[in-house]
Amino acid sequence: MSTTQRLGFIGLGIMGKPMAHNLLQAGYRLTVYNRSRSPMDELAAAGAAQADSPQAVAENSDVVLSCVSDSPDVEAIALGTHGLIHGVRPGMLYIDMSTIAPATARKVFGAMQAKGVEMLDAPVSGGDIGAQQGTLSIMVGGDEPAFERALPILQVLGKNIVHVGSTGAGQVTKACNQIVVSVTAQAVAEALMLAEQSGVDPAKVRAALLGGFAASRVLEVHGQRMLEGNYAPGFKLDLLRKDLNIVLQTAREEHLPLLAAAQVSSLIDALLAQGEGNLDTAAIALIYQRLITKS
Amino acid sequence: MSTTQRLGFIGLGIMGKPMAHNLLQAGYRLTVYNRSRSPMDELAAAGAAQADSPQAVAENSDVVLSCVSDSPDVEAIALGTHGLIHGVRPGMLYIDMSTIAPATARKVFGAMQAKGVEMLDAPVSGGDIGAQQGTLSIMVGGDEPAFERALPILQVLGKNIVHVGSTGAGQVTKACNQIVVSVTAQAVAEALMLAEQSGVDPAKVRAALLGGFAASRVLEVHGQRMLEGNYAPGFKLDLLRKDLNIVLQTAREEHLPLLAAAQVSSLIDALLAQGEGNLDTAAIALIYQRLITKS
Repeated sequence: MSTTQRLGFIGLGIMGKPMAHNLLQAGYRLTVYNRSRSPMDELAAAGAAQADSPQAVAENSDVVLSCVSDSPDVEAIALGTHGLIHGVRPGMLYIDMSTIAPATARKVFGAMQAKGVEMLDAPVSGGDIGAQQGTLSIMVGGDEPAFERALPILQVLGKNIVHVGSTGAGQVTKACNQIVVSVTAQAVAEALMLAEQSGVDPAKVRAALLGGFAASRVLEVHGQRMLEGNYAPGFKLDLLRKDLNIVLQTAREEHLPLLAAAQVSSLIDALLAQGEGNLDTAAIALIYQRLITKS
Repeated sequence: MSTTQRLGFIGLGIMGKPMAHNLLQAGYRLTVYNRSRSPMDELAAAGAAQADSPQAVAENSDVVLSCVSDSPDVEAIALGTHGLIHGVRPGMLYIDMSTIAPATARKVFGAMQAKGVEMLDAPVSGGDIGAQQGTLSIMVGGDEPAFERALPILQVLGKNIVHVGSTGAGQVTKACNQIVVSVTAQAVAEALMLAEQSGVDPAKVRAALLGGFAASRVLEVHGQRMLEGNYAPGFKLDLLRKDLNIVLQTAREEHLPLLAAAQVSSLIDALLAQGEGNLDTAAIALIYQRLITKS
C-alpha cells in the first residue's frame, strides 16, 4: 500500500461509495466528488477530503478513479466544464471503472494522452456486494506500465483483475460479459418455464442441471432468484439495458449482427415499458410468465 | 453389484457401446441387441450374449436398458414388431436412456405399465467421454421404487444421478438442459466474435469472463473450441437439432413460446443446410463468421 499517493474518486453511487470506503480503509489519502452531497459527507466523516468539481479532484490527486453510470457521464466528468482535463498534470493516472462504450473510453484516453495523463478503462463485475467486499472482477484495458501502476490500487477493490488489452479492451470485455450473462439468464428462464409448464419441479431441474454441462453461475444465482420469484436487485434491468445498448452499438460499429443479444435486449425493453426497470436481471423470467398469462 | 440380475442392452452406438461395456465390466450378465452387427460382435467378444431382436432381449433379461437416437427408434424397439413389449414379463424394469420426446416416454410407459413392467426415462448428458468413463449425468423420471431398483445399475454408468420426478420428467429435464447448453453456446459465440471484431484477444476475454458471473462450463469447453476453431464432435449439431425439435415440440404442446431456443434452433438449421451437421455444438460460432464474410 502506498499512502504517499494521493487518490481521487468521482461517483459515490451504489458501486463507487463502497469502493471509496475500501480505499480509505486501505490507508490511501482520498479526495472525493459526487453530484449529490450526502454520500460525500459520509466519506468525509470516514476521513476523505471533499472537492467541488472533478477539476478540483484532479488538482488534489496523483491518481483519479471514477465509477459513474454511462458514457455521457464519463465524458462530462473527464472533458466537460470543470472536468478532470482542466486539473490534470503530466504523469497523472486516470482509471475509469464505469461501464461505458469502448468508443468513449478511447476518446477520453486520447484527450488525456494529449495532456500527458495515462488512462485505463477498468469496468467491473460483481455488483454492490462485490464492491463492498472488495471482490470485484476488474477487466482492464490500457498500456502495461499504467496497468502495473494501477494494480496495487485495484487489488484493494477486486480479486479477479485481468489486463485484457489496449485502451477500450476493458470495455469490450465488459460488453462480452453482459452478452453472456443476459443471454444465459434468458436461457435459464426458458428452461425453468418449460419445466414448470410440463409439470416438473423447476428446483429439481436447476439442481440436476448444475451437476452437468449446463452448469453456470447464472443458473446458480439467477436460477435460484427465478425459483423464489425474488427480483430485488442485484443488478437492475435499467442498467443492463444501458449495457446492452453499448453492446449493440459497438457491434453495429463492427458490422456484426448479434442475434441473441438483440433479442434479449428487446425483451428487456418490453419489461422496462412495463415499469420493471428497478428489478434484477433475473426478472427476464417475467417475460415468459406474462406471455402465457391472459390478463 | 447384483450379478444375479440379467441385464439387456439395446442400441450399441457411440453412447450405448461404452455403457454396455461398463455394465459387463461391473460383472453383470448382459444380452445385447443392435441393428448393425459389428458392435454386437465386439460386445460378444467381451462376454455378452447376442439377441436377434428387442423381444429376444426382453425374454432373456430382468432389466432392459436402451440408448438409441430418437423417439421413433424407442417406439420401434419398445412397441414395434419383435419389440420389447412382446417379450416382457410382469415385474421387469425397462430403463430408456435415449433423449426423446417426453410424450413418447409417457406413451411407452403406459404400454409397459399395462404389462406389469416398470419403466424409467433416464436420458444422459456428458457425451461419449462420459459414457466411456462412467461419469454421465443421468436425469431420471419415474416411480420411486423403480428408481431405487435402477440406482445400482445407473451408478455403473454415471456419477450425477438425479430423480427429478414422475414419468417423462427425465426427458423434460434433458430438454431444459439442451436449451441452456445451446443458447449459452450462442451467447459465448457472440461474445467472442464481438471481442475479435473489436480487436481484443478472445482468449483473454474468455479467461477474464471465467473468473466472474459469466462463468459456465459452456464458456470453458465450447469457448475453448471456438478459440481453436476445433469443431470435431463432441456432440453433433445433427443430434442437437433433434433435441431442440423435442424442446420446441414440447413447448408448443405447453403453449409456451421459447424465443431463444427457437432462434438458436433456426441458426443450427442454417448450419445443417450448409452440410455441417457432423460438427460439434460449438460450431454455432461459424454462423457469425459467415454472416460477416462476403463470399
